[in-house]
Amino acid sequence: MEPATFILFGATGDLAKRKIYPALYNLFVEQKLPQSFSLIGLGRREWSNETFRANVEQSIHTFSRRKASDAGVLKKFLDALRYSVLEIGNTDDYKKLLTLVEQREQELQIAPNRMFYLSVGPEYFETIATNIQESGLGSANGWKRLVIEKPFGHDLASARKLNEHLSKSFTEEEIFRIDHYLGKPMVQKLEVLQQTNPVLQALWTNRYIANVQITASETVGVEERAGYYDHVGAVRDMFQNHMLQLLMMLAIHLPKNSTAQKVRSQKKMVMEALEPLQKADVGTSVIRGQYTAGTIQGQPVTGYTSEPGIPSDSMNDTFIAAKLQIDDVFWRGVPFYIRTGKRMKDKITRIVVEFKEPLKQHPSVHEEGPSPNLLVFEISPNEGITLQLNTRDPQHKGEFQPIHIDFHTSRGDVPEAYENLIHDALHGDPTFFAHWDEVELSWKWVQPVLEAFEENLVPLHSYTAGSYGPAESYDLLAKDGYHWWLDDQLEPANETKKGEQMYV
Amino acid sequence: MEPATFILFGATGDLAKRKIYPALYNLFVEQKLPQSFSLIGLGRREWSNETFRANVEQSIHTFSRRKASDAGVLKKFLDALRYSVLEIGNTDDYKKLLTLVEQREQELQIAPNRMFYLSVGPEYFETIATNIQESGLGSANGWKRLVIEKPFGHDLASARKLNEHLSKSFTEEEIFRIDHYLGKPMVQKLEVLQQTNPVLQALWTNRYIANVQITASETVGVEERAGYYDHVGAVRDMFQNHMLQLLMMLAIHLPKNSTAQKVRSQKKMVMEALEPLQKADVGTSVIRGQYTAGTIQGQPVTGYTSEPGIPSDSMNDTFIAAKLQIDDVFWRGVPFYIRTGKRMKDKITRIVVEFKEPLKQHPSVHEEGPSPNLLVFEISPNEGITLQLNTRDPQHKGEFQPIHIDFHTSRGDVPEAYENLIHDALHGDPTFFAHWDEVELSWKWVQPVLEAFEENLVPLHSYTAGSYGPAESYDLLAKDGYHWWLDDQLEPANETKKGEQMYV
Repeated sequence: MEPATFILFGATGDLAKRKIYPALYNLFVEQKLPQSFSLIGLGRREWSNETFRANVEQSIHTFSRRKASDAGVLKKFLDALRYSVLEIGNTDDYKKLLTLVEQREQELQIAPNRMFYLSVGPEYFETIATNIQESGLGSANGWKRLVIEKPFGHDLASARKLNEHLSKSFTEEEIFRIDHYLGKPMVQKLEVLQQTNPVLQALWTNRYIANVQITASETVGVEERAGYYDHVGAVRDMFQNHMLQLLMMLAIHLPKNSTAQKVRSQKKMVMEALEPLQKADVGTSVIRGQYTAGTIQGQPVTGYTSEPGIPSDSMNDTFIAAKLQIDDVFWRGVPFYIRTGKRMKDKITRIVVEFKEPLKQHPSVHEEGPSPNLLVFEISPNEGITLQLNTRDPQHKGEFQPIHIDFHTSRGDVPEAYENLIHDALHGDPTFFAHWDEVELSWKWVQPVLEAFEENLVPLHSYTAGSYGPAESYDLLAKDGYHWWLDDQLEPANETKKGEQMYV
Repeated sequence: MEPATFILFGATGDLAKRKIYPALYNLFVEQKLPQSFSLIGLGRREWSNETFRANVEQSIHTFSRRKASDAGVLKKFLDALRYSVLEIGNTDDYKKLLTLVEQREQELQIAPNRMFYLSVGPEYFETIATNIQESGLGSANGWKRLVIEKPFGHDLASARKLNEHLSKSFTEEEIFRIDHYLGKPMVQKLEVLQQTNPVLQALWTNRYIANVQITASETVGVEERAGYYDHVGAVRDMFQNHMLQLLMMLAIHLPKNSTAQKVRSQKKMVMEALEPLQKADVGTSVIRGQYTAGTIQGQPVTGYTSEPGIPSDSMNDTFIAAKLQIDDVFWRGVPFYIRTGKRMKDKITRIVVEFKEPLKQHPSVHEEGPSPNLLVFEISPNEGITLQLNTRDPQHKGEFQPIHIDFHTSRGDVPEAYENLIHDALHGDPTFFAHWDEVELSWKWVQPVLEAFEENLVPLHSYTAGSYGPAESYDLLAKDGYHWWLDDQLEPANETKKGEQMYV
């Protein structure tokens, strides 16, 4: 791995504290950082190197999945850290930064490879990119990379504008757009699972798959983000980025020897094959919801419009469900159902692949008999793969029993999304970053939804906090003869208990 | 369930004590026996009803998987038991038996449905069947059934002769041939798994399956059965019956709504499609082995020819491995490898379905990369299904990791094979009993092997006790570019440990 300098904008911020330092520390312990690694933290606060290091150390102690047991290793990590005060709009500060970067590069005898990680609000992306460019921080003798996080725009037009600006300072190959769902280990496994397993490849078509259900539900409400969230809603906060990325990752078909290029071109092809919605038709395949007061895990919680900072007449969506269709040879006729929302019953991110029953003539004919086969990818908070098959208890002939064949990773073993992503960015591997094409095509698909919501062409359904969302989101599937697979139907626990109940 | 009388020949014997009484008791507790149930035990010993009941009670306490905690239930079960002395060749004893049976039927007000369970040596089958017939124990006003256990003959000719004899007293529909491997819950699930699961149906062909491996290995040696076993060998003791039954159960293709009739006709079709061997060619696809001294689980054990009761020049097979080919549209080109033996490393019965790697051009070209997908059915001593897929550790790109998706039944929940089979026989359900056609076709396939062994046309390879059998059994697969999947490659344990090793 090439030596590089990690230049972190927003070094005193919350994301840095919770995610970036613990991730870097874990990578450091696992010797997955460049041999000569240098990190320069930037922020408005007047911190010394020592204060910065003390803060980073605190963050590691609090948030790292690995306890900092070896004081020597921790010290070595902290020694690689420097801090510099930087006012984002102040060009002099960038020159000061350049001096510090070059000084460190000389000390460490490393090439001017520089990764700029923007852990700041999107309103600063353009200014920072321009200043990096103009200050000469991007050296011709090494590489430069820009790492940014969503939101990438507020709609199609603003996303295009942002990208245009960034393109002046960084090429597409130099921009690493983090969608942290792409950093989750199970999402990363989706690519490999399909690519290296003939049994999954054989099944991965509309010949065998009936529908795909992608759920990301949260139990939390709007929390402290009222001002932001009320202008964004579930559609921008979750759907346009994370949910469509999950759809792409599930739907791609890769050759055995895949490359980052191939992954991205396949994802693009999926997005291009997505049947577009017309604004007037949004209501038939998109359900908009907003939570009302209810109970989450035994605790009464307030409705959305009673949340602090939310106008009492807000029409914002805290839930969205949608039916999408990919019009290609693999997926024609297989609906992809997506739903995401706040204040739902469970905190879970999961993809359920429901297989066809070949002998069932019409999906609406529900005959007694075995359940459909399901392949379930648990993405978070736990990671696992479950295959639901049918069997029959030999002592109870005629009664079919679903059984769950599982794989679960134990929790401590799973690297955090940020670890994977920072590692990849330092390696220059763009596989699990969102390409501009994907971002643009996602906004393009979502744009009529945004407009239909804005113009109230789509009803806003309420749902009780602690539920699975508005009843109308069930109708979306029921029309096709399906239903959402819920937690208690997928729970592989109590397999034994079920067995035991069979006996007197 | 129709009331019936269970007439047990060999009621004082070992099989009855270890298997039949515990099974009946478990069925009784689970209310799976007829409401008015009557059992009459027969033996040469001069036992009273009380002695008989005391022996049965002892057997339940010792061998039942369910503790006889409810004294009332146990008493009720024992009350249904009667004993009668019977000399197998003595026709008067059958008349005495008939009187007792009729007396019990009148007491219980039940129809003359009579199940004759022959827990005796095969040399008595014909005599008993004839006497049942001639004594009028088979009543025209109810059904009669004959339950027998292997061996069904010693070779093709003797099997045919036995069947001819039995046919004079019982029709094929009245004969229930126990192959206790067909009573094992996982074997019974094979039928349902394939029939009700589209994802398995889709994969169940030579398009996706590379080979099938059926293993039944024992750690025990010849034990107290030297006189019997030395004339039988692995080929008759295990291969002709259990192993070929497992092959049939795996290879059948069933419609969604299957019947016992359909299962049996499909099994017959598999056997008919099995490519026959010529005596002269047995050596190319059958490996014969005999164990020499070695170590089993840390204990030194003697070689076969040093076992008490075995002649020092015995050429008997304690191990057999074979390659079989089913010439039908589903299985053409998919070798079925079978092996079974005594004094092997592990006690396990297992079927491994190995899937093709579609992009691998030739099976002998071993390229670096993912392992083949495997679907593993653990039949005994544990029961489970494992799907081996490949994934890749995101932190170690390029290194593929097999992961194991498992389903395991906890041990106490699994009904014993005999429970399932006795239950089915009482119900008159022949699904999991060996039809004469299957028995005959199995002997037919095996006959040239018997002859080749007899005439020493096939070398007798030695293998060390505690090994996986003779090295030549590996060559059988290596010729085709495959290898036996061994325990340590299939062990799904330590998934976590593997993960943990990734970190410093």
